[in-house]
Amino acid sequence: MYDVMIIGAGPAGISAGIYAVSRGQKTLLLEKNEVGGLIGKVSTVTHYASVAAGESGKSFAEKLKKQAEAAGVDIVQAEVTGVDLVGDTKEVRTDHGTFQSRTVILANGTSPRKLNIPGAQELAGKGMAMNAARDGARYQGKHVYVVGGADGAVKEALYLSQYAAAVTIIHFEEQLGCIAEFQEKVRSTANITLHLNARLHAVYGVDQVESLEISDEKTGAIKTIDDPGCGIFVYAGTVPNTELYTQLELQEGFIPVNEKMETALPGVYAAGDIRVKQVRQVSTAVADGTIAAINAAAR
Amino acid sequence: MYDVMIIGAGPAGISAGIYAVSRGQKTLLLEKNEVGGLIGKVSTVTHYASVAAGESGKSFAEKLKKQAEAAGVDIVQAEVTGVDLVGDTKEVRTDHGTFQSRTVILANGTSPRKLNIPGAQELAGKGMAMNAARDGARYQGKHVYVVGGADGAVKEALYLSQYAAAVTIIHFEEQLGCIAEFQEKVRSTANITLHLNARLHAVYGVDQVESLEISDEKTGAIKTIDDPGCGIFVYAGTVPNTELYTQLELQEGFIPVNEKMETALPGVYAAGDIRVKQVRQVSTAVADGTIAAINAAAR
Repeated sequence: MYDVMIIGAGPAGISAGIYAVSRGQKTLLLEKNEVGGLIGKVSTVTHYASVAAGESGKSFAEKLKKQAEAAGVDIVQAEVTGVDLVGDTKEVRTDHGTFQSRTVILANGTSPRKLNIPGAQELAGKGMAMNAARDGARYQGKHVYVVGGADGAVKEALYLSQYAAAVTIIHFEEQLGCIAEFQEKVRSTANITLHLNARLHAVYGVDQVESLEISDEKTGAIKTIDDPGCGIFVYAGTVPNTELYTQLELQEGFIPVNEKMETALPGVYAAGDIRVKQVRQVSTAVADGTIAAINAAAR
Repeated sequence: MYDVMIIGAGPAGISAGIYAVSRGQKTLLLEKNEVGGLIGKVSTVTHYASVAAGESGKSFAEKLKKQAEAAGVDIVQAEVTGVDLVGDTKEVRTDHGTFQSRTVILANGTSPRKLNIPGAQELAGKGMAMNAARDGARYQGKHVYVVGGADGAVKEALYLSQYAAAVTIIHFEEQLGCIAEFQEKVRSTANITLHLNARLHAVYGVDQVESLEISDEKTGAIKTIDDPGCGIFVYAGTVPNTELYTQLELQEGFIPVNEKMETALPGVYAAGDIRVKQVRQVSTAVADGTIAAINAAAR
């Protein structure tokens, strides 16, 4: 029986874990993948106060993990398969057993949205839907495509431009939707080309991507590009991981909370990207975790 | 003429500066003391996600400063003497000139509350109202007193216990008001003694503290302790630095904001400890700065 059980070990969950333990709570942190969440998979962590220049997602995640373990958070790698959030004792079922707790903090964030286009599934990991931080160096001297125009996409395009001979950003809007800093960096990076008003329409190949189709948003015209061995990096937004939380009323898939990070269910909190909020950044996720844990401990 | 002017270079102000620049804003950060704010003066920064074990306030503040400068924030050391926050152009008068900006973020936090007791002013810096991080090592083998029982006080008492022969915590309540982690550490630290239901009543001396008076909260009895050369470290809460913001309606001295960190005055934001909020931690200050800057930039 735990005092505080946290689902998801990204920045929100880690921060919650550290704070819960500091308040004397027996704390369990469940994570189905690696500690760090989505930020652990980015090439570089930017703008978070005190982060070192060029800090990779991977090393940032390692710091979080080490800090939480040193604090005394029980971290268990397990995939949650069901929850009961109603009542005084919260129950979380996983592929590694069932856990009970006085309070629960839902901090399992969002997942990258997958492209539902021909070839996407078959070629995943074979040139399609690659991870810049992990795979970028393998594209030294090659051509890569980045799908998406928001901050996450453009940050990875900039990272990939260090390795690739050429980077093409495919974005469906008339201009990039990223922050000024990244727009300026794109302008001053010679090997990045923008392909705007465009969508990735299909990818073809067997063991690698051989060609791709790009559709024009305005005319609907489809252009085929033969580019054997190219890499395609998809950053087409994210979707909240709330499918198991049917006991909560969601807003467009996200969990509403008040300023204490309390959901509508007593003893159940939500923190980080998974909650309804205006600004989704590492810093705001970390603060959410802090606030949720302090309130869960005080309950 | 700036886009974003930030008053106060603690974690909230630094985070705001980094984010404002990333959004293409010409950004000025005004600080009357050293970059880092109150957290720059603590012995150790604890619980902030990704912080290294044993990170000192000073080195944390240096990281913040370096990061903001690298980002392109103009940091000016100046004391604000007056502000005009109404109208489209905000004006801030300082002892180093007057600055104008489209938006202002008020992030100048709180100041330690001073004890208004006999001797406090005369002996300040001469044994009274010392800073643990800066002065602690000078009390090697000596006796020190820590006034206060909240997290900030107890954290510094624990730090001082490494140097001092004996640490006495003087706290007016029946028990310490700090987190479980610190309570547990106090229990396991042999040279810390609690003096509860007690207040520091007066300090005496000329070039150093010679004696102190402690009053009993319950009986009103006053006890004199002769302790030549002892150190007294005061952590008796904080007060918001809002005396210049007469154009804003305050709540118990703090600035009310909405979830975008907007105050009641258009183009004026508040972030960090200075605003009305439930949880005052580095992490929540950093998040406030992030949110304020993103909204100021979008305005």
